[in-house]
Amino acid sequence: MKKIEVKLKDNERIDDLEFKGLKIIQNKDGFCFGMDSVLISDFSKTIKNDSIVADLGTGTGIISILLSGKTKLKKIYGIEVQTEVAEMAKRSIELNNLEEKIEIINDNLKNLGKYFKKESLDAIVTNPPYQKNDTGLKSEDIRHLISRHEIECNLEDIINVSKMYLKDKGEMYIVHRPERLVDILYLLRSYKIEPKEIRFVNPKADQKPNMVLIKAVKNGKEFLKVREPLIVYNEDGTYTEEILKIYGKM
Amino acid sequence: MKKIEVKLKDNERIDDLEFKGLKIIQNKDGFCFGMDSVLISDFSKTIKNDSIVADLGTGTGIISILLSGKTKLKKIYGIEVQTEVAEMAKRSIELNNLEEKIEIINDNLKNLGKYFKKESLDAIVTNPPYQKNDTGLKSEDIRHLISRHEIECNLEDIINVSKMYLKDKGEMYIVHRPERLVDILYLLRSYKIEPKEIRFVNPKADQKPNMVLIKAVKNGKEFLKVREPLIVYNEDGTYTEEILKIYGKM
Repeated sequence: MKKIEVKLKDNERIDDLEFKGLKIIQNKDGFCFGMDSVLISDFSKTIKNDSIVADLGTGTGIISILLSGKTKLKKIYGIEVQTEVAEMAKRSIELNNLEEKIEIINDNLKNLGKYFKKESLDAIVTNPPYQKNDTGLKSEDIRHLISRHEIECNLEDIINVSKMYLKDKGEMYIVHRPERLVDILYLLRSYKIEPKEIRFVNPKADQKPNMVLIKAVKNGKEFLKVREPLIVYNEDGTYTEEILKIYGKM
Repeated sequence: MKKIEVKLKDNERIDDLEFKGLKIIQNKDGFCFGMDSVLISDFSKTIKNDSIVADLGTGTGIISILLSGKTKLKKIYGIEVQTEVAEMAKRSIELNNLEEKIEIINDNLKNLGKYFKKESLDAIVTNPPYQKNDTGLKSEDIRHLISRHEIECNLEDIINVSKMYLKDKGEMYIVHRPERLVDILYLLRSYKIEPKEIRFVNPKADQKPNMVLIKAVKNGKEFLKVREPLIVYNEDGTYTEEILKIYGKM
């Protein structure tokens, strides 16, 4: 077995994803992935074998790395505008020996045309910044700002770019906050990427959702399936069976 | 106490709504109200006192009658295109001695301009036909066809009319099927009646929704609240406490 060494910066650590031996480099100051990335990776695992996929705003690379473990894709391109974060993602790809499967592109996703032909992608997966640029508490770290607020790109940029580079019937997978649902569905239909499936994530069965998973298909037929909620915790506060399965604990 | 007599046709019966003594005339051949009407009446009970409200496609008048019991509205206009059904609704209004509160208008809702000034309504409530005219199993009875399929009017007609006759910041309440969610949210935003609150109705906590309740506000600010699901049945098949409360059984 090949021994892989990567350099860690002072504020970084390697975390074991406890899934197929995959690991990830994270930043101790808080640049860590959340449950949203894990859930969107699982939600999008139905992407067909041998697909070419872009992960828009890949951050630490978590979605691309998990997807590589859950699917048999041909290639995943992780697009990340922040140089320091993209560089961390690159080292995680090396750490997992996934350079053949995953390529990190350090650029703004609005520049996708520099790397891809029009209508060349089979699928796009994205965990975009959730907050509009004019709302919400702004954290102080500029890296957090960019990953959480629509500073470098907004939802319409992402959907516009997806429309251009997805093949006909290409699939788009988004995780976002429920309060942006109207924005998402309105823009998707406007850009002819038809929303086909929605799944809300509810902390408990009788609580309001705090995340939403959306699958849309470019030039798809108008018909939406709203699935059963993905419930995170049982009544007694333990994780549900489905969450444990997604995290590979069952 | 005034004794009220109304004539029943051969195929009709009077049902007790078991709520504030309200009653309704229904048709034994199946022209009966469903849970959707009960839930949208309850969902829209926050309409302010003394409001002028239209119930678009009132059918048997069930939503208008329940709303009159749950609220202190000034006047509810129930619009119904089918003469026979509108006439049945009128007799239910008489039966409940509600002629002062509720007026049934027997016309297509596209003709609302014959009865109302522009921007004159405080709120609109509607349980519209769910099926697009080109889809679904068509039942044989023309009355059922018209109440379930978009024959006399479609979703865009209803939203267009609502936009014209709602006051600025006037509220719209819709019950519909989850598979039409994209159509509803897309059209509402297009017509500047901003969706503000959504509640899905799930038969059981871990099942997919079969209804959706939507509140929208004309010229409202863009921000959506997705509420906790309204769960109909407990695990053991009995009604949940919330459903029993809505039906006035607790």
